[in-house]
Amino acid sequence: MTENSGKRAPVALVVGAGDALGSAVARRFAKEGYNVCVARRSPEKLEPLVEEIRALGGTARGFGTDARKEDEVVDLFATIEREEGPVEAVVFNVGPNVEFAIRETDARKYFKVWELACFAGFLVGREAAKVMVPRGRGTILFSGATASIRGKSGFAAFSGGKHGLRALAQSMAKELGPQSIHVAHVVIDGSIDTEFIKKLFPERYALKSVDGILNPDDIAENYWHLHKQPRTAWTFEMDVRPYMEAW
Amino acid sequence: MTENSGKRAPVALVVGAGDALGSAVARRFAKEGYNVCVARRSPEKLEPLVEEIRALGGTARGFGTDARKEDEVVDLFATIEREEGPVEAVVFNVGPNVEFAIRETDARKYFKVWELACFAGFLVGREAAKVMVPRGRGTILFSGATASIRGKSGFAAFSGGKHGLRALAQSMAKELGPQSIHVAHVVIDGSIDTEFIKKLFPERYALKSVDGILNPDDIAENYWHLHKQPRTAWTFEMDVRPYMEAW
Amino acid sequence: MTENSGKRAPVALVVGAGDALGSAVARRFAKEGYNVCVARRSPEKLEPLVEEIRALGGTARGFGTDARKEDEVVDLFATIEREEGPVEAVVFNVGPNVEFAIRETDARKYFKVWELACFAGFLVGREAAKVMVPRGRGTILFSGATASIRGKSGFAAFSGGKHGLRALAQSMAKELGPQSIHVAHVVIDGSIDTEFIKKLFPERYALKSVDGILNPDDIAENYWHLHKQPRTAWTFEMDVRPYMEAW
Amino acid sequence: MTENSGKRAPVALVVGAGDALGSAVARRFAKEGYNVCVARRSPEKLEPLVEEIRALGGTARGFGTDARKEDEVVDLFATIEREEGPVEAVVFNVGPNVEFAIRETDARKYFKVWELACFAGFLVGREAAKVMVPRGRGTILFSGATASIRGKSGFAAFSGGKHGLRALAQSMAKELGPQSIHVAHVVIDGSIDTEFIKKLFPERYALKSVDGILNPDDIAENYWHLHKQPRTAWTFEMDVRPYMEAW
Repeated sequence: MTENSGKRAPVALVVGAGDALGSAVARRFAKEGYNVCVARRSPEKLEPLVEEIRALGGTARGFGTDARKEDEVVDLFATIEREEGPVEAVVFNVGPNVEFAIRETDARKYFKVWELACFAGFLVGREAAKVMVPRGRGTILFSGATASIRGKSGFAAFSGGKHGLRALAQSMAKELGPQSIHVAHVVIDGSIDTEFIKKLFPERYALKSVDGILNPDDIAENYWHLHKQPRTAWTFEMDVRPYMEAW
Repeated sequence: MTENSGKRAPVALVVGAGDALGSAVARRFAKEGYNVCVARRSPEKLEPLVEEIRALGGTARGFGTDARKEDEVVDLFATIEREEGPVEAVVFNVGPNVEFAIRETDARKYFKVWELACFAGFLVGREAAKVMVPRGRGTILFSGATASIRGKSGFAAFSGGKHGLRALAQSMAKELGPQSIHVAHVVIDGSIDTEFIKKLFPERYALKSVDGILNPDDIAENYWHLHKQPRTAWTFEMDVRPYMEAW
Repeated sequence: MTENSGKRAPVALVVGAGDALGSAVARRFAKEGYNVCVARRSPEKLEPLVEEIRALGGTARGFGTDARKEDEVVDLFATIEREEGPVEAVVFNVGPNVEFAIRETDARKYFKVWELACFAGFLVGREAAKVMVPRGRGTILFSGATASIRGKSGFAAFSGGKHGLRALAQSMAKELGPQSIHVAHVVIDGSIDTEFIKKLFPERYALKSVDGILNPDDIAENYWHLHKQPRTAWTFEMDVRPYMEAW
Repeated sequence: MTENSGKRAPVALVVGAGDALGSAVARRFAKEGYNVCVARRSPEKLEPLVEEIRALGGTARGFGTDARKEDEVVDLFATIEREEGPVEAVVFNVGPNVEFAIRETDARKYFKVWELACFAGFLVGREAAKVMVPRGRGTILFSGATASIRGKSGFAAFSGGKHGLRALAQSMAKELGPQSIHVAHVVIDGSIDTEFIKKLFPERYALKSVDGILNPDDIAENYWHLHKQPRTAWTFEMDVRPYMEAW
């Protein structure tokens, strides 16, 4: 994009641009010429990603946003639309996987998990809808998990948040589809290649050598695929897992 | 039950004892000799129900409880266990069916719907588990809806809360089943015979004359059936709808 | 029922009246005064059941029927309607649980499994619909399994037949509900207390002492419950499993 | 591919290469250099497709195969492996959408629908597994429909066949995934742009002008996407529908 173009590159916004999947999605859209805006609570953690994208010739900007705060999310969209360009793709990739027996589930913790996994998704999804619907174009992608479709012993809080997010995505897909906004939900089943898994689950991480854990770039390719689907054939939901995952 | 009996009748607690289904469930358990405790935000609204049950020879007591408040729910269980008897069945029957387009969904409203439909269910379910697990007996029943299993245009908030509640129920069922606590979820599909439907949807209400809307007593029979299932054959989920409902 | 009554007792027909669940369902309906007709391929195996029901004062008759043969199923209904009375409840309880790796699945075997699990269910369900719809009353119950809702490695044939049967049940429920015919599907998850399990899986069978396997009579109670549901609140599907079953 | 290359191009086999989706999938794989083998009952109907692919510089060959006949399917794979090359992708795209009230569903018709929609899929899937597993590579894709996941009034036969096919696909995916064979199922929801829809449902076809019916090439892009997914992130199921489809 040159200064003279008069037309700004479309923006892809990734909320929850963590070190693994969020970053991979950001890089994937950057590679296609999108102006990539990435948001997470600690903006300083976004610097390596922003620099990496710029080093590859892409455009990127980091935002310190607490996606659970309505005013911050509203402000995020307003700033981007004003200073960066029209938001064409939004990826919501937030959600803490925590485990508690039901009797040991603290009420505040239960609320916090929902707030992050689901309420933040609502705020981001709603603001995305607000800028996209008048333009009649845009893609909103939500990251789900197996917990999005099945409860599990010890996961009342996490699966509650994830189920709620999926209900949001499906309700939005049905409402906004006819307005030419594509909403989709990716059910990620299995461990992603992250520092977290590497440190806490070394045996599982060892499966990486035989492709047994999810590669973030390979997942990101599916987000890009969903975004570029023409509206005559839109997907609402797809699952992804390593070939050797038991399910 | 006399003061001298030494053994108190088991308690059935209905949280969300509204005029239709909650009341019907309360009456059904009272008929079987349960000491029925009914809770809703406005305790004065419970008086007719309590009197009705007593008039039929049953035992009942009303509680003014805001099920979204942790301390009130904790207090409700403590009071009942201390003053009434061991809680053997808990029915959570709360949840506001509201409709909003996604862009018009107020963040506070979205939160409120979840708080009532899901968070209150978590508080009630958790406290029930706390008293039941040490005794190794008890039934916890959650009222669901079609929105519990499918998102729908205009129902991001309601289906989000209901999906979260179902995830809670399923996670609890899997965790507590092996501890002899029966957790189940009833998917109620269709309009229940209520004053609300009568006033707002008179055409639908007219179907009552041909059995076309859900009779609260008939639904309640299923709650009773679930409660009395022996543990060799427990149901987690069943749906109920009028015979003529399209689905 | 005496010759003089003028009115014949309603018939409950159990197709697949094996030694465990089918027999238990037959006994349950007999207890309520139904004229119980039981069918399986080898009619001599039905004799103990028929005698047991009669000894308890009930009415029963056995039929040797291969439910995969259209003419035999047509004849079964014709004979019962003519000689025994109006069929008011039909239970289809057939289906062989077999396991084969996909490459070792013989085409004839794959067909046979479907023929028994699904095609026979279609024949029985259709003939039931033919006699029930004109009368505007009747219940048709299908026995399902976890394989009805999820495929599994090694179970392409069995889950294929069971999925097909569930599709039949659901399609029939939607079509016949408005005509006052109740169609339901019971998802049986876990081992039933049978001679088969006793001999082949003694460790699993040992769980019987702690209620860990499905008791046929307890399952049958649910079939009876479904049958007596008033049409203002009909269930299409319910699951049953032992309290300690992992799922 | 020259005679001298020593290495043959991989084969993509499309069974059910009808004029719309099957042809589009064949063209999509041909564009990527695959040797495309297409099969349907009437081989003469394949000639335009084969010629079209060849005219574009691709490699294609038509086969007259009745996929319901075990020997024909076995022979199809044997011939292709011997004369054309290793089968790396198989697409099963067969299945007749028919509607009958349950009481009017002819037993032979019910069987025929299953035979085509499900049994043929089993034969093709099994033979594909036989050649792929020893090589530890390959993709098997099944075309599904909304009837694959939900029964519907009037569609007992069609949804039965489609449910069975999905159970097959899921069972195969779970069994063969760990052996590096990718099995996936595409749920196609909505009308595809075909001559059939054009003639019989002109009003629906008119939606084509606003992208309201499924474009075969756009669906085919998803089949290609599934095939090229690396095994660290495989999808089992995705749905596709026009943006304006009600669901």
